[in-house]
Amino acid sequence: MNNDLNKFFYPKSIAVIGASSKPGTLGWELLGNLMKFGYNGKLFPVNPKADAIHSIKAYKSLLEIKDEVDLAIIMLGKHLVLSSVDECNKKKVKAVIVITAGFKEVGEEGVTLEQDLIAKIKKYRMKLVGPNCMGIINTKGDVLMNGTFIKGTPVAGGIGFVSQSGALGASVLKIIEKYDIGFSQFLSIGNKADVSENETIDYWKDNPDVNVITAYLESFSDPKEFLKVCKEVTKKKPVIAIKAAKTSAGMKAASSHTGALASADTVAETLFEQSGVIRVNSVEDMFNLAKAFDRAKLPEGKRVVVLTNAGGPAILTVDEAANCGLEIAELSEKTRKKLREIVVPEASVHNPVDLLPPATAQVYGKATEIVMADENVDAGILILGPPLMFDTVEITKYISEAANKSGKCAIVVVMSQDEIIAEVAKQMPVHPPLFNSAEKAAWAISEMYKYKLYRESAEGKPKKFNVNTKGVRGIIRKYKQGGLYLDFNDVYDILNHYKMPIVETRIARNVQQSLYDANKIGFPVVAKVFGRELVHKSDVGGVALNIQDEEELINTESRIIAALKEKELDMKLEGFILQPFAKIEDGVETILGAVKDAKAGHLLMFGLGGIFVEVFKDVKFKIAPLNDVDAKAVVKAIKSYEILKGVRGKKSVDIEFIEENILKLSQLVTDFPEFTEIDLNPFVFSPNRNKSRILDARIKLG
Amino acid sequence: MNNDLNKFFYPKSIAVIGASSKPGTLGWELLGNLMKFGYNGKLFPVNPKADAIHSIKAYKSLLEIKDEVDLAIIMLGKHLVLSSVDECNKKKVKAVIVITAGFKEVGEEGVTLEQDLIAKIKKYRMKLVGPNCMGIINTKGDVLMNGTFIKGTPVAGGIGFVSQSGALGASVLKIIEKYDIGFSQFLSIGNKADVSENETIDYWKDNPDVNVITAYLESFSDPKEFLKVCKEVTKKKPVIAIKAAKTSAGMKAASSHTGALASADTVAETLFEQSGVIRVNSVEDMFNLAKAFDRAKLPEGKRVVVLTNAGGPAILTVDEAANCGLEIAELSEKTRKKLREIVVPEASVHNPVDLLPPATAQVYGKATEIVMADENVDAGILILGPPLMFDTVEITKYISEAANKSGKCAIVVVMSQDEIIAEVAKQMPVHPPLFNSAEKAAWAISEMYKYKLYRESAEGKPKKFNVNTKGVRGIIRKYKQGGLYLDFNDVYDILNHYKMPIVETRIARNVQQSLYDANKIGFPVVAKVFGRELVHKSDVGGVALNIQDEEELINTESRIIAALKEKELDMKLEGFILQPFAKIEDGVETILGAVKDAKAGHLLMFGLGGIFVEVFKDVKFKIAPLNDVDAKAVVKAIKSYEILKGVRGKKSVDIEFIEENILKLSQLVTDFPEFTEIDLNPFVFSPNRNKSRILDARIKLG
Repeated sequence: MNNDLNKFFYPKSIAVIGASSKPGTLGWELLGNLMKFGYNGKLFPVNPKADAIHSIKAYKSLLEIKDEVDLAIIMLGKHLVLSSVDECNKKKVKAVIVITAGFKEVGEEGVTLEQDLIAKIKKYRMKLVGPNCMGIINTKGDVLMNGTFIKGTPVAGGIGFVSQSGALGASVLKIIEKYDIGFSQFLSIGNKADVSENETIDYWKDNPDVNVITAYLESFSDPKEFLKVCKEVTKKKPVIAIKAAKTSAGMKAASSHTGALASADTVAETLFEQSGVIRVNSVEDMFNLAKAFDRAKLPEGKRVVVLTNAGGPAILTVDEAANCGLEIAELSEKTRKKLREIVVPEASVHNPVDLLPPATAQVYGKATEIVMADENVDAGILILGPPLMFDTVEITKYISEAANKSGKCAIVVVMSQDEIIAEVAKQMPVHPPLFNSAEKAAWAISEMYKYKLYRESAEGKPKKFNVNTKGVRGIIRKYKQGGLYLDFNDVYDILNHYKMPIVETRIARNVQQSLYDANKIGFPVVAKVFGRELVHKSDVGGVALNIQDEEELINTESRIIAALKEKELDMKLEGFILQPFAKIEDGVETILGAVKDAKAGHLLMFGLGGIFVEVFKDVKFKIAPLNDVDAKAVVKAIKSYEILKGVRGKKSVDIEFIEENILKLSQLVTDFPEFTEIDLNPFVFSPNRNKSRILDARIKLG
Repeated sequence: MNNDLNKFFYPKSIAVIGASSKPGTLGWELLGNLMKFGYNGKLFPVNPKADAIHSIKAYKSLLEIKDEVDLAIIMLGKHLVLSSVDECNKKKVKAVIVITAGFKEVGEEGVTLEQDLIAKIKKYRMKLVGPNCMGIINTKGDVLMNGTFIKGTPVAGGIGFVSQSGALGASVLKIIEKYDIGFSQFLSIGNKADVSENETIDYWKDNPDVNVITAYLESFSDPKEFLKVCKEVTKKKPVIAIKAAKTSAGMKAASSHTGALASADTVAETLFEQSGVIRVNSVEDMFNLAKAFDRAKLPEGKRVVVLTNAGGPAILTVDEAANCGLEIAELSEKTRKKLREIVVPEASVHNPVDLLPPATAQVYGKATEIVMADENVDAGILILGPPLMFDTVEITKYISEAANKSGKCAIVVVMSQDEIIAEVAKQMPVHPPLFNSAEKAAWAISEMYKYKLYRESAEGKPKKFNVNTKGVRGIIRKYKQGGLYLDFNDVYDILNHYKMPIVETRIARNVQQSLYDANKIGFPVVAKVFGRELVHKSDVGGVALNIQDEEELINTESRIIAALKEKELDMKLEGFILQPFAKIEDGVETILGAVKDAKAGHLLMFGLGGIFVEVFKDVKFKIAPLNDVDAKAVVKAIKSYEILKGVRGKKSVDIEFIEENILKLSQLVTDFPEFTEIDLNPFVFSPNRNKSRILDARIKLG
């Protein structure tokens, strides 16, 4: 269990350095919030000019305080922050939050200041949250800390929220009051000079006060660490995140085919998916879903029942449920019979069950009990349309009680009446998630079900192939400088060292040797120019396919030599690459590649090749290293999986062999991170693995 | 101008038949709502047992009323409705709303009752809204009619809303109170026994009180009429709609390739797109967008400026704007200089402009004025993060005033503070759209910009080709029964009659004639079995490609005959189809087809063919008849358009020829609606139109 942030979230005493006696200032608000929320510890305002603030004795300096201080919250002018941190060290404070702005976010001068701050923190072995942040919250009964300067009162619950944007954090606190979203802990990490999202999420992994983790991120502090931490955390509790600013400069320079197919958002997308983090695009979605996870059970299956008193909304809900991959439960005859006994004759007792507007609280409660008890039902969306004549709070409570008792996943929807939601939440401390939109409820249940499947899914195992790393190392050593594409013969050898099926290749130094090699390989053959400086072979007309015999080979090579002469490139020609001309009739053309992101490391890519690759971009990325489950998932994820499996009577290609090669490529870039770009394109897979071949390959050294 | 619904929306007198003196009943609520909202006409409650209701004299029967009655709202028990309609006729009432439920929606008995109701309405030449509906609203100052029984008070504005779902209508009225959504007119059309969505939308086309039309639909009353009406209306004012219940039984039986590619939602999707209706999936989106259209100018271009005091939300907004196809405006140096003069030093004067939390109302107002005046800015998203210390209402008003003055498209976002929105709306009758989500604002502006482009886009022209309809009619006459696939020779003739390039085809009655025909065509050839009952030629092994010479042809046909004998199918063989074996090296395989929907008519489909068609479903549908603009749009809409235009050095196929063939197919199904399914698959298009060929075709007769 990771206790590193305990002093932040469970402090026994807090010094508010820069607390102010001037109403309206941040230093006045923050101290006031701590008091109003009922902080269960000792507060020490520090201000050289004040005697008391908010009726609490103030201290001229931190060192005047006799008691131990667990947490210091610094809100001084930016040029006073460093010396204040020195004082914290003298006072042996180990946890510091710097609210003050004017650091990295304002440019050069601020960057220096922030670096100085980080240096001090490291030297003193402190932990720092911020700078440029909004503070911290813990709603837990024995802490009751609202260490922020935001107006509004946090609602207690099981959600942990780490936010990189202060302002967004503030708007969230406004939302939660209204929509019954219960926070357990909130941390505004600001510039992330020390404590990052990774550390916070990891801290919450085993924290029993936090059931669901939410995060708003503008950047990843350390993508590899994020992947490692979240992979573990998501197997224990759900993590839901927003990643704003979908631009990544990391791979801009990539010149390979694989690199070109990675979008600005590929790293984030891949990171979230591979770590099991649920990605959402709006604050509303994030907290709706978090609320559902926090207050409802995970659904055992995907069969939902929709209960309503209004037809229209029920139809939209059923549509959305189907869209999200849920099934509309078929109610048993027993259930329908029981329903029939309590509803009006015009009501529909088939799913979606429509009780019609006359339904009373008692009928609604009983109907909820009946449908939720059906063995064909895994989850319920219990909708209350806008009321016509009854007491909506009363009805909502009846539904909620029955939903609670059912022991199944249920969301209660009170359409367009947030004041009802707030009132029910107040009157009924333990209640199902209360939503104001039925479509969002359907979406939330589908996400919960997907999460359940994810948590139960098998953990992958790494796979190591017996390869010749020494051989590869030897090749790399030959290259004195980076940033280059390797010679094809080196690429050929590397792939052979890793037992990847590069097509048989012979490099002939002249036409005479070409004839010999071509006969060894067997006609028809492919001939390509070979030369360190002749990288783009097709551009110089240096590729000839399907050469049938010796005569054609001589003619072709002579023609190529003449063409190079004309372009004054003949001095660069070092020979000819000869390969068998492979017919790919029963094979499928794919592309397998890798590209290195500056921060996230290598992304592997697999997908459909040929002329359709740019149009359909039917490719899938994963961050290396991959395990066996990852490799399987990559192949299955592309739409063309159907084609790999054989359409219109064609046989399936050897899928296991694809997985094997993906894992080998993963091993190669893990063993040799200096390879920044690899394209195996086309990589033709056949039903027979022995006929599957890499027809061309490029490797770039970083 | 269509005035058919004037008596509904602008009645001078209303009879409420079934008004009740019992508080809480619908009949009591509806009359009360009419009074409370301040209806500017005469109200006549009709109730045989009451003397007065809500302080208004009640009448025993409609006929007792001496004054003229423009509109009757009937809320009696369902068995009293028909006789009440008889009375309406006697009283010469021409506009009737039946609120009462228990008709078509409850099954058989109700269906009969509804048919009887319709018969009466037709006989009396009345107009009927409902049954099973919630009533009508007109907020216009000289009408002020709230003829619904819903709790809540409508807000006045420029939105027209027609709803098929009563309950949804009710929830909407709750929403509008809170989110400042101003209605002009609302009509709940319920079972649509007479007045439909089409009639209502058409009525609003020239109604100056309605600026934006919104619709919630569960079904289309008449899809063809919808297309016709909306195509006209959307060129005058925007129509935004929800279509729930995405299931259509219309094409379930389709057996063709084209039919198989049409999803349950294809008809609705195609209808909306082709008619220029903006489709949304939630009530929230519908009214957010309607509000934007109602209160903001259409943007002249797609360059937006984002103004904020909070970095996080601004990033999400910029992301969403880019996602939606908007551009982030590059502010001029002049603008940045002016901004610099009024903002704090740490603020960013680049787009997104971040004023930081200290920004006052005056600074916000001035900054709005400056950025909106920039000539590089077409639209503004003006975000106010949650306030820390200032008066949010004050700031919002300053921003709104500057936005109003700018004369450009602007949306003001007040994050998570609906009470501020309501307050500003109250204090400032003319204000820009006030949103609570910045992402939604970006989305709304992008939809407005798309609508602007749509409204300015060229109207298509129909195109008629000179074809031989007589020839086709002759062929159809030969078939005595429907539901059949036509013989291939008839298909061949039909396509020739319409000058569509079906590959040269000869039908030989025996092997001897095959040899003659093959030589006429020229080897290599394709041979296929021919026989009325041998529809699935490949399934019986009856297709042989690339036959090189006479010997191979004899062998092949003998082999096929032997194989058919073994399956005891030889009696069904009527000969062989012979065609040239076309190499499609420089051509692209496509599919062109048509399938008939029971209500919407023929849907044409064009897309990528070959083995990828099922995987990528890269096809586009349009409802026939198509015009020249439609045909161009279809070809451009598929992703593979890039491939048609030529990739990797290949030449573009003849795009105009594709358009021409799409139009010919449209003409064919328009001329002969009895063709229910047509597949031209594969249809290979080449750079040279003379080499473009339909290689196989099937036509089904309805």
